Amino acid sequence: MKTLSPLQQERLKYQPKLPKCLANGINSLELEEGQATESVRDQEAIKQLFEKTYGKPIVTFKSTSNKKESPVKNVGVILSGGQAPGGHNVIAGLFDALKQANPENKLYGFLGGPSGIIDGKYQEITKDFIDAYRNTGGFDIIGSGRTKLETEEQFQKSLEVCKKLNITAVVIIGGDDSNTNAALLAEWFVKNNAGIQVIGCPKTIDGDLKNEQIEVSFGFDTATKTYAELIGNIQRDANSAKKYWHFIKIMGRSASHVALEAGLQTQPNIVLISEEVEEKKMSLEQIVTSMCDIITKRAEMGKNFGIVIVPEGLIEFIPEMKTMIASLNDLTHELEKDDDYQNSANEKKFEIITSKLDSDNAKVFSSLPALIKAQLLMDRDPHGNVQVSRIETEKLLIEMIRTRLNEMKAQGKYTGKFSDQAHFFGYEGRCAFPSNFDADYCYSLGFNAFALINFGLTGYLSSVRNLTKPAAEWIAGGVPLTMMMNMEKRHGEMKAVIQKALVKLDGPVFKELEANREDWAMNDRYLFPGAIQYFGPTEVCDLTSVTLQLEHK
Amino acid sequence: MKTLSPLQQERLKYQPKLPKCLANGINSLELEEGQATESVRDQEAIKQLFEKTYGKPIVTFKSTSNKKESPVKNVGVILSGGQAPGGHNVIAGLFDALKQANPENKLYGFLGGPSGIIDGKYQEITKDFIDAYRNTGGFDIIGSGRTKLETEEQFQKSLEVCKKLNITAVVIIGGDDSNTNAALLAEWFVKNNAGIQVIGCPKTIDGDLKNEQIEVSFGFDTATKTYAELIGNIQRDANSAKKYWHFIKIMGRSASHVALEAGLQTQPNIVLISEEVEEKKMSLEQIVTSMCDIITKRAEMGKNFGIVIVPEGLIEFIPEMKTMIASLNDLTHELEKDDDYQNSANEKKFEIITSKLDSDNAKVFSSLPALIKAQLLMDRDPHGNVQVSRIETEKLLIEMIRTRLNEMKAQGKYTGKFSDQAHFFGYEGRCAFPSNFDADYCYSLGFNAFALINFGLTGYLSSVRNLTKPAAEWIAGGVPLTMMMNMEKRHGEMKAVIQKALVKLDGPVFKELEANREDWAMNDRYLFPGAIQYFGPTEVCDLTSVTLQLEHK
Repeated sequence: MKTLSPLQQERLKYQPKLPKCLANGINSLELEEGQATESVRDQEAIKQLFEKTYGKPIVTFKSTSNKKESPVKNVGVILSGGQAPGGHNVIAGLFDALKQANPENKLYGFLGGPSGIIDGKYQEITKDFIDAYRNTGGFDIIGSGRTKLETEEQFQKSLEVCKKLNITAVVIIGGDDSNTNAALLAEWFVKNNAGIQVIGCPKTIDGDLKNEQIEVSFGFDTATKTYAELIGNIQRDANSAKKYWHFIKIMGRSASHVALEAGLQTQPNIVLISEEVEEKKMSLEQIVTSMCDIITKRAEMGKNFGIVIVPEGLIEFIPEMKTMIASLNDLTHELEKDDDYQNSANEKKFEIITSKLDSDNAKVFSSLPALIKAQLLMDRDPHGNVQVSRIETEKLLIEMIRTRLNEMKAQGKYTGKFSDQAHFFGYEGRCAFPSNFDADYCYSLGFNAFALINFGLTGYLSSVRNLTKPAAEWIAGGVPLTMMMNMEKRHGEMKAVIQKALVKLDGPVFKELEANREDWAMNDRYLFPGAIQYFGPTEVCDLTSVTLQLEHK
Repeated sequence: MKTLSPLQQERLKYQPKLPKCLANGINSLELEEGQATESVRDQEAIKQLFEKTYGKPIVTFKSTSNKKESPVKNVGVILSGGQAPGGHNVIAGLFDALKQANPENKLYGFLGGPSGIIDGKYQEITKDFIDAYRNTGGFDIIGSGRTKLETEEQFQKSLEVCKKLNITAVVIIGGDDSNTNAALLAEWFVKNNAGIQVIGCPKTIDGDLKNEQIEVSFGFDTATKTYAELIGNIQRDANSAKKYWHFIKIMGRSASHVALEAGLQTQPNIVLISEEVEEKKMSLEQIVTSMCDIITKRAEMGKNFGIVIVPEGLIEFIPEMKTMIASLNDLTHELEKDDDYQNSANEKKFEIITSKLDSDNAKVFSSLPALIKAQLLMDRDPHGNVQVSRIETEKLLIEMIRTRLNEMKAQGKYTGKFSDQAHFFGYEGRCAFPSNFDADYCYSLGFNAFALINFGLTGYLSSVRNLTKPAAEWIAGGVPLTMMMNMEKRHGEMKAVIQKALVKLDGPVFKELEANREDWAMNDRYLFPGAIQYFGPTEVCDLTSVTLQLEHK
């Protein structure tokens, strides 16, 4: 029986690159401190919530010839939230730095996400253990989870577990929410004189944990390249067979960075961007109209095929849909105990719903295809709300477009042939082998996280910048987590959270799409990126994302 | 604007490898003839239908020091049927051999599949033109199509077009059906003294055009590696998040070779094989039972996740489903003009159908989830029959399993948690950049096809064998198309067709699955093959499929 694929065997041997200062050794670093910082908004409120950790300076590492002494330290590490390629390398970088600093140091991995530190489920990470995970995808090394670390009781339990293991620093690898919680934990530990530092690492394929100091979250590069591989392959198929419109929904819970990046890598006919839909207050009808316009024009050119990219979060950015879904949530809570409703067949349920929604919402609900109505009524989350991520938006668009094209055909306004294929890509890219970029970046983030620990910092996010340059020129340092925060309403309450980065419509990345999309719509400018390459020419293997290139050129 | 991705640019430079005899030059070959051949079955019937081309010998090429003269020749080439990675390289190999033989030779590509030769739509293939397609995926170079070349009128028109272009040989790149038609055309040309040769090339990702002389059809290697990449990535995700059962349907119209190969490359928990289901006369209930058994046992081990591979053609191999669908086809033809039925809502339609089917079929129909019933009634092909390929078998299984597990939970026989994700992979792999194996194999097939033409042969399939060895040791030659034929009932009529190779339950490939699947079901033996590599270590880049290795070790 085989236990490792040939690529696994080869990738285990890859030695990730580090920024020059880190490559010179963990004990040969000195710290440069910048000015005191402020949070991006709501400074007073954030300052009150983070009395002890607010306002710290941005820090940058430099090499020095003075060797630093490194007393023995035990560190814990947590993987939090959805998988992103490169998580294993963050841990590998952290491990290597920690052992380089002092071979007596120990690294503990908390199992199954943040719940591991609360429940005291852990495993010591040793050389043999980590060696089997270097440069691989997935979070299976210690597992991940979605427990939110935010209550006093959880903090207290975490403290006890850390004390037991003599852990004086915790690294939390996660997205914006997990790092918000890292900031809370850091503040709590300082307030309670726990003597435990907390350092975050910026993870998410969604690419929405991003700001002046964090150029990109890890995993975005690999995931978007994997989706672009698949979109490119499908484009080549569409362009060969010339008979299908492929509607491809791409993961990315809220922001459309992933769809945008995958679009720029492949140049399909249509790329929908949720942020634009919201900004322009587009209705579903308007989206369908603009798409039918392109489909009709292409049909006139004899091209009854094409590629559409749909961002996963689209529905919640369509104002009328957002409103309707909110009403629907209230309504279905009411109907939970209504036996008449509960025992009705779907068609009858739709009637009841329509009669009970107000007229605007009823109109929106009625305009939807039966499949989507059923999904809206059936797929509920544990709170009884619509699970928007389970709604097949790609099929919603297909159904509405098909209906519209049939009407147009009856009126003689469309003479083409519309055949569709629906796809959804998400799980395919979250655990791919990290690209060389993500392998290097993640290893550097982890290595750097230990450097931050070694200088006694807490409440910082590991920051590696200047990423469009070769790794040797990357800049390593740390950003205070509070600097990235603002106050937002969550579940009816104002909370301090790390600001999510949505696609900026006046930014260079969206502008690039805008400048080209009319051409891409009509003339087939398909690019075929192909599979991620790890060993070939540097032009193929070491490219970063288009987003990063445009934002930092 | 970008016109080529970095990988495209690099792959254009790749020089595919040839078997040694072909590498020595197209004009330095000699032909070795074997014994006269017979068709695999129904020898008398086939012989009658192919009077002129039946019984020819297998031929093999050897190098010779006697240079052959190569008079000027024009050749036409056709891509037929679904895309498969490497089609462009077949044409590149054909082009290079033809120009090497005599620079005056011309190659014409017929556009949009077999209809191109009938309608006289073509394009001359020149060096600059072909150079932009070397080592790329897709059939977009000249397009493909599904027109069946089989009537007297079509043959007559093809002859006229060939005469006009002075074409004396046609190469048809296609699957079993297209090569059956190639054999018919070859016979017709000989019978009518047309002086036009016909050579086939074995294409199909399905892997079902295979026999003693044809070790594998091209495209199978790349497509299965692409699917295995995705399955592996999803496995890593499932093993990290530990919360979903992923049901992955894999393309492959009829035979399960693709599912089997992808399964052997990734070692998932469950791999369904259609041929086994048919052989063991399994009902849908039985399939669901055996899957629930594994799901329950894994749940007892605390593992509420897993991976299932479902071959696309499964439904038609379940005897009771096949029978029911046949009855349903008859019934819906009857109901076509029944306004009462046509205007009914889905639930009412299901009632009518159930009341009109005989009791066994009604029972099978009733057992299906509403989604699948609706798909059976709605998605019809141009003949009004159920389009089995549009039925979401993966969702059918999920729904039935969920229902069953709920029953078992109520009885206290299952205490797990079942959350599902459905995937279908097909279009993602048909147009990937061909693997090094497919790039070399296809180029050799095309180069070899011209060698067969140059020796005046017709009614042959280009054959390159000994494929588990390095390319230099490959054996090039030709197999008479009639040798692979038998008589089969098609649309109610007995026809001579190339025998489709289904998965052999007593063959080494299925046996390998059988020997391991109990272990894979319970213990997670997931392999992560990762993306196809083109430039790295030979162990990673130059591996052929597991199927080929097991069948020819």
